[in-house]
Amino acid sequence: MNETRSCCIGIDLGGTNIKAGVVDAGNRLLATVQQPTGAERPWQQVAAAMAETAKAALEKAGRSLTECTFVGVGCPGTIDPERGVVLYSNNIAWENVPLAAELSRQLGGLPVRLSNDANCAALGEAVAGAAKGVKNVILLTLGTGVGGGIVWNGKLFEGGIGGAELGHTTLIAGGELCTCGRRGCVESYCSATALVHQAERMAANAPDSLLAALARKNGGKMNGAIPFDAMRQGCPVAAEVVRQYTAWLAEAIANYVNIFRPDVVLLSGGVSGAGAALTEPLNQMLPGLLFAKEHLSAPPVQIATLGNAAGIVGAANLGKENDAGPIKQ
Amino acid sequence: MNETRSCCIGIDLGGTNIKAGVVDAGNRLLATVQQPTGAERPWQQVAAAMAETAKAALEKAGRSLTECTFVGVGCPGTIDPERGVVLYSNNIAWENVPLAAELSRQLGGLPVRLSNDANCAALGEAVAGAAKGVKNVILLTLGTGVGGGIVWNGKLFEGGIGGAELGHTTLIAGGELCTCGRRGCVESYCSATALVHQAERMAANAPDSLLAALARKNGGKMNGAIPFDAMRQGCPVAAEVVRQYTAWLAEAIANYVNIFRPDVVLLSGGVSGAGAALTEPLNQMLPGLLFAKEHLSAPPVQIATLGNAAGIVGAANLGKENDAGPIKQ
Repeated sequence: MNETRSCCIGIDLGGTNIKAGVVDAGNRLLATVQQPTGAERPWQQVAAAMAETAKAALEKAGRSLTECTFVGVGCPGTIDPERGVVLYSNNIAWENVPLAAELSRQLGGLPVRLSNDANCAALGEAVAGAAKGVKNVILLTLGTGVGGGIVWNGKLFEGGIGGAELGHTTLIAGGELCTCGRRGCVESYCSATALVHQAERMAANAPDSLLAALARKNGGKMNGAIPFDAMRQGCPVAAEVVRQYTAWLAEAIANYVNIFRPDVVLLSGGVSGAGAALTEPLNQMLPGLLFAKEHLSAPPVQIATLGNAAGIVGAANLGKENDAGPIKQ
Repeated sequence: MNETRSCCIGIDLGGTNIKAGVVDAGNRLLATVQQPTGAERPWQQVAAAMAETAKAALEKAGRSLTECTFVGVGCPGTIDPERGVVLYSNNIAWENVPLAAELSRQLGGLPVRLSNDANCAALGEAVAGAAKGVKNVILLTLGTGVGGGIVWNGKLFEGGIGGAELGHTTLIAGGELCTCGRRGCVESYCSATALVHQAERMAANAPDSLLAALARKNGGKMNGAIPFDAMRQGCPVAAEVVRQYTAWLAEAIANYVNIFRPDVVLLSGGVSGAGAALTEPLNQMLPGLLFAKEHLSAPPVQIATLGNAAGIVGAANLGKENDAGPIKQ
């Protein structure tokens, strides 16, 4: 094989779409292809669609399967990376699916490794995005839920099976009901879903506010961008929603920093679209919340830069970056 | 040197006492010696006392300095393990003390490595105590504060400088004032100090309770053992204090498990003296709090077994167990 043409495939398996990409040795994304997940189908059909999407991406990149050395997959849910099994995924309603073995079978016996989607996003940003060249990175995905990914010494730190669930740690024990069944998790205060709920409550209490008006203009549907938009236009109700949200997020980030002391904290997912309106107050609040604040400086909080590509590039790097190495099929 | 006689020194530097021990290649503690820290003295004098204590322990063990290969020190506070500097310690009022270099100078140029005291306790339990042979361990010290130590793949996981501060993560953001200046940290609900405060409040509200009576019998001084004693004797007020304390601790442990998914969680420090009265309810509550609880089992919560020796044995293992290796002087 021509070394300069060797490549890896990264697949981002989502509840809505399968996205596959071809990544070269320099972590350039050569081509991507996507198709609907069709999560309601038997998992074998979804796996077949994943293989098909991967092959289409290879063709689009002008590469062949024989030039490909590895396939990585970022999946929502709880993964057993050693066995290549999706233990449980709420988004795609899977239980104990031996995805790595099946995908490998459909892709000419290539080694396949799975990890959680937030882990892949963190690894992608660490090898080719906002944290390129940075050794120790924590990434939070602020979307439907709050996902966490930890890159330590340039490698994914997954913890034991089901670990790195940063969003399922208490912000206010006994507080808001979380999707995991517990009360008061970070996810129930800091997800896009939580931001929307809080904005809806505040808008209902202040129907004359710009916050409420922008939601009405959006077909009566609040979303995670409206509070930031309304705040920028001077709405005090929206400013209060954003202030409370960022205060909660700062507390959560302070927890992860006190545990890990990473070099940088990255934010991705829907809410991160707010950009500096989010990171500026976070970077102001964070130092005051940290342990030994008079003696240690706070890592910067930044917005991730690769967007959807992070998951693909990270997945494609699962073979290189993990101590355990790819699953041998 | 006779390999079978080679040994390491572990030093546990506390606010009250310096404890030094000699540990052989099989992690047997051959001898220990202690003397008061005298923390009010200049740090150079404390370092000299540490060297003196170490030499006394060697003599007691019948070993010489030339048979010794390494010195490890567990210190309270925030440590820079790479540079061997105590950045800050509240207990002994130190700032930027280059302890490793000074100790090495006083101990014939032996390599010296420092780490946080809770880290050393975790490593000690992992190499020779309750978690011997277990790869992934989290240890919590429930004393004046709440310390945390993480052993991953048999090695200390310290995070970046000042990391592994598990006690300084939110249990109830905005809640009780913590010693770190923030509100609502695990330490402010789960330390022995917090247990005593809560028991004092409850006893003040119920002066006729056995809880209050036992504190009066103890010279009016509540401590962390009295609530458990009073509960065992049927006091409902004490039972409520213990119930609330263990519920908080279960929430905190669930956080660490959701992040790390260790094989075992160990408890040490004053409150851990309660034994099964503490671990039984924790092991009952923990599974219900975990992420993906229907799909993943909970690690057991157990009491650490080495007591004060854990810090000494762990410190003596800092040279072997850490990726970065001992500081070369």
